[in-house]
Amino acid sequence: MKALTYEGPHNIAYSTIDDPKLFGLDGAIVRVTACGICGSDLHIYEGHGFSADLGFCVGHESVGEVVEVGSRVSEFKVGDRVMVTASTGCGRCSKCRAGFVLACERGMAGCYGLGAALPGSQAEAVGVPAADGNLVKLDDSISQDAAIMLTDNLPTAWYGARRARIGVGETVAVVGLGPVGLMSVASAFAMGAGRVFAVDLVPERRARAEAMGAEPIESDDARAVIGELTKGKRCDVVLEAVGADATIQLAMGLAGLGGRVSIVGVNQSRAFPFDMAMAQILELEVVIGLCSVQRELPTLLKLVERGRIKPEIAVSHHMALSDGPDAYALFANRVDGVSKVVLDPSR
Amino acid sequence: MKALTYEGPHNIAYSTIDDPKLFGLDGAIVRVTACGICGSDLHIYEGHGFSADLGFCVGHESVGEVVEVGSRVSEFKVGDRVMVTASTGCGRCSKCRAGFVLACERGMAGCYGLGAALPGSQAEAVGVPAADGNLVKLDDSISQDAAIMLTDNLPTAWYGARRARIGVGETVAVVGLGPVGLMSVASAFAMGAGRVFAVDLVPERRARAEAMGAEPIESDDARAVIGELTKGKRCDVVLEAVGADATIQLAMGLAGLGGRVSIVGVNQSRAFPFDMAMAQILELEVVIGLCSVQRELPTLLKLVERGRIKPEIAVSHHMALSDGPDAYALFANRVDGVSKVVLDPSR
Amino acid sequence: MKALTYEGPHNIAYSTIDDPKLFGLDGAIVRVTACGICGSDLHIYEGHGFSADLGFCVGHESVGEVVEVGSRVSEFKVGDRVMVTASTGCGRCSKCRAGFVLACERGMAGCYGLGAALPGSQAEAVGVPAADGNLVKLDDSISQDAAIMLTDNLPTAWYGARRARIGVGETVAVVGLGPVGLMSVASAFAMGAGRVFAVDLVPERRARAEAMGAEPIESDDARAVIGELTKGKRCDVVLEAVGADATIQLAMGLAGLGGRVSIVGVNQSRAFPFDMAMAQILELEVVIGLCSVQRELPTLLKLVERGRIKPEIAVSHHMALSDGPDAYALFANRVDGVSKVVLDPSR
Amino acid sequence: MKALTYEGPHNIAYSTIDDPKLFGLDGAIVRVTACGICGSDLHIYEGHGFSADLGFCVGHESVGEVVEVGSRVSEFKVGDRVMVTASTGCGRCSKCRAGFVLACERGMAGCYGLGAALPGSQAEAVGVPAADGNLVKLDDSISQDAAIMLTDNLPTAWYGARRARIGVGETVAVVGLGPVGLMSVASAFAMGAGRVFAVDLVPERRARAEAMGAEPIESDDARAVIGELTKGKRCDVVLEAVGADATIQLAMGLAGLGGRVSIVGVNQSRAFPFDMAMAQILELEVVIGLCSVQRELPTLLKLVERGRIKPEIAVSHHMALSDGPDAYALFANRVDGVSKVVLDPSR
Repeated sequence: MKALTYEGPHNIAYSTIDDPKLFGLDGAIVRVTACGICGSDLHIYEGHGFSADLGFCVGHESVGEVVEVGSRVSEFKVGDRVMVTASTGCGRCSKCRAGFVLACERGMAGCYGLGAALPGSQAEAVGVPAADGNLVKLDDSISQDAAIMLTDNLPTAWYGARRARIGVGETVAVVGLGPVGLMSVASAFAMGAGRVFAVDLVPERRARAEAMGAEPIESDDARAVIGELTKGKRCDVVLEAVGADATIQLAMGLAGLGGRVSIVGVNQSRAFPFDMAMAQILELEVVIGLCSVQRELPTLLKLVERGRIKPEIAVSHHMALSDGPDAYALFANRVDGVSKVVLDPSR
Repeated sequence: MKALTYEGPHNIAYSTIDDPKLFGLDGAIVRVTACGICGSDLHIYEGHGFSADLGFCVGHESVGEVVEVGSRVSEFKVGDRVMVTASTGCGRCSKCRAGFVLACERGMAGCYGLGAALPGSQAEAVGVPAADGNLVKLDDSISQDAAIMLTDNLPTAWYGARRARIGVGETVAVVGLGPVGLMSVASAFAMGAGRVFAVDLVPERRARAEAMGAEPIESDDARAVIGELTKGKRCDVVLEAVGADATIQLAMGLAGLGGRVSIVGVNQSRAFPFDMAMAQILELEVVIGLCSVQRELPTLLKLVERGRIKPEIAVSHHMALSDGPDAYALFANRVDGVSKVVLDPSR
Repeated sequence: MKALTYEGPHNIAYSTIDDPKLFGLDGAIVRVTACGICGSDLHIYEGHGFSADLGFCVGHESVGEVVEVGSRVSEFKVGDRVMVTASTGCGRCSKCRAGFVLACERGMAGCYGLGAALPGSQAEAVGVPAADGNLVKLDDSISQDAAIMLTDNLPTAWYGARRARIGVGETVAVVGLGPVGLMSVASAFAMGAGRVFAVDLVPERRARAEAMGAEPIESDDARAVIGELTKGKRCDVVLEAVGADATIQLAMGLAGLGGRVSIVGVNQSRAFPFDMAMAQILELEVVIGLCSVQRELPTLLKLVERGRIKPEIAVSHHMALSDGPDAYALFANRVDGVSKVVLDPSR
Repeated sequence: MKALTYEGPHNIAYSTIDDPKLFGLDGAIVRVTACGICGSDLHIYEGHGFSADLGFCVGHESVGEVVEVGSRVSEFKVGDRVMVTASTGCGRCSKCRAGFVLACERGMAGCYGLGAALPGSQAEAVGVPAADGNLVKLDDSISQDAAIMLTDNLPTAWYGARRARIGVGETVAVVGLGPVGLMSVASAFAMGAGRVFAVDLVPERRARAEAMGAEPIESDDARAVIGELTKGKRCDVVLEAVGADATIQLAMGLAGLGGRVSIVGVNQSRAFPFDMAMAQILELEVVIGLCSVQRELPTLLKLVERGRIKPEIAVSHHMALSDGPDAYALFANRVDGVSKVVLDPSR
């Protein structure tokens, strides 16, 4: 089949690879009808990926149709319209049943397309392990673009916002307005935020957040501007969706007394320079984590089905899978007002 | 001055009465620029009021300008634009400081216009006791109609919804779509409700709720219809805003497993026939109460200032204070698509 | 095998009945080493049971050893020391997986020993359906008496206390000091209650609660006495563990402003006379429900294993299964300082 | 009067200083009957204090009797038995009324004995500003030692534990078993902790915690030992009560998946090396802060009055105020099994 593969830094290729094989009796194979490029795919693209492999199929956001199921799969059948959640687990241990698949007790916690071990889904088809736990049936009311956002970006944003325990009427800042940041804006409003400041360097991204009801703020003097707009109180909650040292520092600086800073951007530092003195005076709370997608979906599916969150708003580009190499370059360079790119394997 | 007075069942008069006097050194006098008619005013109108007095000035929802303050008032001065909260307390005891003015430890819990003891505010002016605790300064961003709704109806609705602990994405029903019911719809959405069923007999009221995003339901077969729309699950939360035995029974019947029923409609029964058997099987939670307005305002002022709740949407009629007798009849008879009536004492 | 059977009002017999049969491939058979008599068994004894059957084996609280398992049982094997939870479900639907077995989506919600459909466990052995969901392995640190309390009485008490959301330092009253009431006292303290009033007519029961740290209160003038002891504030939380109309009325009368009344006593009234007027003034919250045992066990097992709750304190009598008829009479008549009776089928 | 004064590093003197003067019409003077030495007093003793002043009276924990009040003090009178809270505020702004005196809007946030600005209370008497907000009346049931603990150490510990939202049955570790650490152990148990690990280098301190029900753990291999005792799960909550970089690192290492680390030890680093990578994998939550004593007291007074927390258990030494210099040396050197030292100004 055709697929996008990683061939080295800044080198994503449109390749022909073997068709996916069934992961045992619990597995399934999904024909991909749409797949997304995620911010974390750029780590791989830039050569800072999660394995040393080459030639593996990338991508972990996909929607499609079940075309084959193992004999022990009980909840899905051929023909079902499904989304493939970015995170995987065994689906049966107590942690997986509680939705914490990234803490799977059977050691099946993982993610597609980070290396050769579990091939990705920017392809014509993808093999899904433990399908009963790692597929989700899609209601007709959920569009393909919305479903792509539900595989990873929206749950990640929601998870961060949920852990920050946003109270109705509270003031929130979102640092970084990529797809996860935009979904953080949507999540904050859905939870009842009174006002949301949307901070990014890129004007098109700020404009997109503004259209969602947020107040756009340029990054450079965000602390001063937000300080002024809030009469010195700054924010009850800050959602960080980038993961760089500088943006985490900025996020902490936007918190007011008793503020909660929730970081879903990935930062791999073992010694991030944390300002304890400030945190103590401001009585801060800092939460950090990686999202188990499955845990967030029950609430999110309801909200998307009822139109309370419209995640497709983040999608800026639809391209053919064969244009994948160009799509990566476009997304990496943040040009053309790019936000979310969705690829179509049928083209 | 001119004022509306209660002269017996179905007899509200436009009368001339004495000007208000200052309630001691802590009191203030407010020139009323707008005043609302509340559902509980109809109890008085119907002759089922809260005292046996005649000739007293009615009404407990007003907005205006401070024209006189006692020497111990520290937070307000002549010329301030204020709203007069429906509930009163001393403002200084620990209960009042915590916002529970209806539990005032100095015995000053009360409400305007329920009898001769504390004259009402459907008048050209109103005397306010303990002004520091019973007045609220109004930001310019809050319209007069919004402010009227903030004196009683919106806080009452919010209080009921808040105690029901509406979770993001949950399914809510509101029983009764008078001004409090409409504000219950608004509150549920502001708290993140996934869907809201709006139940009333009157088509215009349902239409008003539908315009706010709710799904209109006729009262007669509400249980069956909502059961079908929710595939038998019915509602996570039911907000009751009428207080009649029948509507409370209806509200309880709309709750699903683990449902929470919050009653803000006033029901004076000492032996309401409560279905314990059903409540036990469904694991219901029932909350009942009267709202201390002051307690709810900090959050609500933020939400109204930021436009997250637009309470003026409930106002259907503006009339002159001199037309008060007609306004009462209109509201009592639920004609002309009436929802909230606001009276202007300058006319 | 030998078993206790219901033969009509006030007639429990020590009989010989058929050995239990396996409930299909998911079932198991447990040799009973101890079984308890529950307050709800007395409903059956008094002739107000839950079915019209005669001659069926009664009882729903048992501990023992697995002696046979169906081929699809994966979590238990012959020889395991287990408790049999009073409530049953399929163990696999989403409701059961979340612990709400009484809302089992496959229609398997039930309880042992209420009729012929699912025979009881006051016997030498009991057949358990869906064993993976309806058995619980017992840590060696949990005594047999503690385990009996964990099958029903303690989870029921805990469930009621948990839903009342007892805050640290709060004042609690428990109405009714049978085994569930005593466990309510223990639960309240484990949740951090500041003081607990224990209300019952029977001196020995009050003494038992007092030994647990509670303040004993005679029922007759409980409202006045507790009012005085709390300087008129009465209680933040009231836990009702009887279910009679009179005790529910008493419980509501013990609640203070904003009080929460949680009822786990079984009351089958369709028209309990509920004091709405008082509930509104006091801003009460009333929660009613039946406990799904499985849902409460994860927390309770930890607390009992660590010695934070010592449920065996409620056990007053150990008797032989063959003495079952006498044990029922003793428990029904509340004589001999009886609290919990545990029966031994080996005697 | 006689008082302890700071005369340079390792030099606390028993001196004669001026009697305290009344802080205006809102102030009061308290004759000190007992005063405590706090861990933060050791920062001053070591020469790392909070001001460059010399000769000022130290100490911020005291209990005594009101001997003079300004004319605007309404809640206290001469003769009242009171405790002097370590933190001060105006007592009237919205922040102070909500208990956040350290965020006092009138700029009166402070603490006694940190410099010449607000003299300390290790003296025969202390001047208290804004007495209505900074004194607390003592019930007879509260002993002098308990009251000393309530001025600072217990509220600080409670504040840290409360922000960690300890759930009933959870596993907690306390790092550092000085007076605040011991009170953290007590707080965790009062909130319902299932088990508490108590970590310190000093055997006597561990013994004291063990007597309170905790499991003593030597610091050196705490992570390994606790890992083993919890079968690899480690702790739900870790309470840090030292503030050194090493103990904060240790605390973070004791947290399990989804763990909450609450830091009340004072750490002034602007660049503490924070392990983001670990925090993300473990989905940690880190809370840091300084305690506003007033905010915690309503709950704590109830718990101490009811005997649920016995803070006097931390007091190891009673000495005369004139022995203050020796007392500081004893406490600083952690000898003689010292925990809390209480000084008596009458000796």
